[in-house]
Amino acid sequence: MSRQIITIGREFGSGGRIIAKEVASRMGIPFYDKRIIAMAANTTGLSEEFIEQTSEKRSRSILYSLYDTTQMLPMEDQVYIAQSQAIQQVAGEGACVIVGRCANHVLRNWTNCLHIFVHAPLESRIKRAVEYGIAPDEAQAEVLRLDKQRSAYYNHFTDQKWGEARAYDLAVNSDLGLDAVIEAIVALAK
Amino acid sequence: MSRQIITIGREFGSGGRIIAKEVASRMGIPFYDKRIIAMAANTTGLSEEFIEQTSEKRSRSILYSLYDTTQMLPMEDQVYIAQSQAIQQVAGEGACVIVGRCANHVLRNWTNCLHIFVHAPLESRIKRAVEYGIAPDEAQAEVLRLDKQRSAYYNHFTDQKWGEARAYDLAVNSDLGLDAVIEAIVALAK
Repeated sequence: MSRQIITIGREFGSGGRIIAKEVASRMGIPFYDKRIIAMAANTTGLSEEFIEQTSEKRSRSILYSLYDTTQMLPMEDQVYIAQSQAIQQVAGEGACVIVGRCANHVLRNWTNCLHIFVHAPLESRIKRAVEYGIAPDEAQAEVLRLDKQRSAYYNHFTDQKWGEARAYDLAVNSDLGLDAVIEAIVALAK
Repeated sequence: MSRQIITIGREFGSGGRIIAKEVASRMGIPFYDKRIIAMAANTTGLSEEFIEQTSEKRSRSILYSLYDTTQMLPMEDQVYIAQSQAIQQVAGEGACVIVGRCANHVLRNWTNCLHIFVHAPLESRIKRAVEYGIAPDEAQAEVLRLDKQRSAYYNHFTDQKWGEARAYDLAVNSDLGLDAVIEAIVALAK
């Protein structure tokens, strides 16, 4: 069975997004990252900027919910649902690569998926963060902050722990080499 | 950098041992499983049977330790240490495949290693357990019991959680196909 709907979760600075883009390019299939945000914006009527800011944060505290007097779900939950619907829509159209947004969890009952998690040692991720333009003396704190944020978001919206091997078909250390990892993913998707 | 010292941890019934043996065979390098036990038996003077029984159990309770009036470490810890020394010894001799026994943790600071974890969905593991000769009505309980035992052993002797993706270079679902997984490991080891 080929598994050509590929979801890629990643630690910040692991190169997961670069890997995802190149896998899509080599397989000649669509790559979804920000486009999921645009689709969710379209559904909810919220701005893309707002969704991007909200979309890796977990719901606010129960006090916030009590304070919220409307009948609506908290905004973060609405954004999560809109993004999940967008993920299911693009997956329904066939082979593609989707980055982040708990897509492995959203599509956990789909059989034709390949769920990937890309991680790397902290020192490699700090080095990559500096290459992305983050100040060297701030890079470690920023990497750790984003880990915490992604982990809190994932754990909140799924019943799993972020980075638990069993939630993915393949969890890989990108220090093995980006090209080697890309080749392994393309081979396993077939 | 080639990573030809390969450690393979695995869930019971995932086919991890079959994968490990075939990787060693295709790469033409030694395969260590029970031989680690024989080496530890040699060092400690304990029988291979005793080590095998002990070697996937964690240390007994603190009450046992208090009861133990000798100056020696608890037997389970002695076995763990002897096995760890055997693992370091065979890894020091060069390329090889080592199955189980927290070898990824024992060799965590070695740079030329490829640390693998093989898992699979519960239903696939139950099916494989039955093929191994376990009674169909006992297979699920036995798979879950062995998961619990391996997890307790690993968590006790390492500072990690068993099955945490970041403790491995590659964690893989063997439902992708044993042959595809074997090929991916051999390719990444190069």
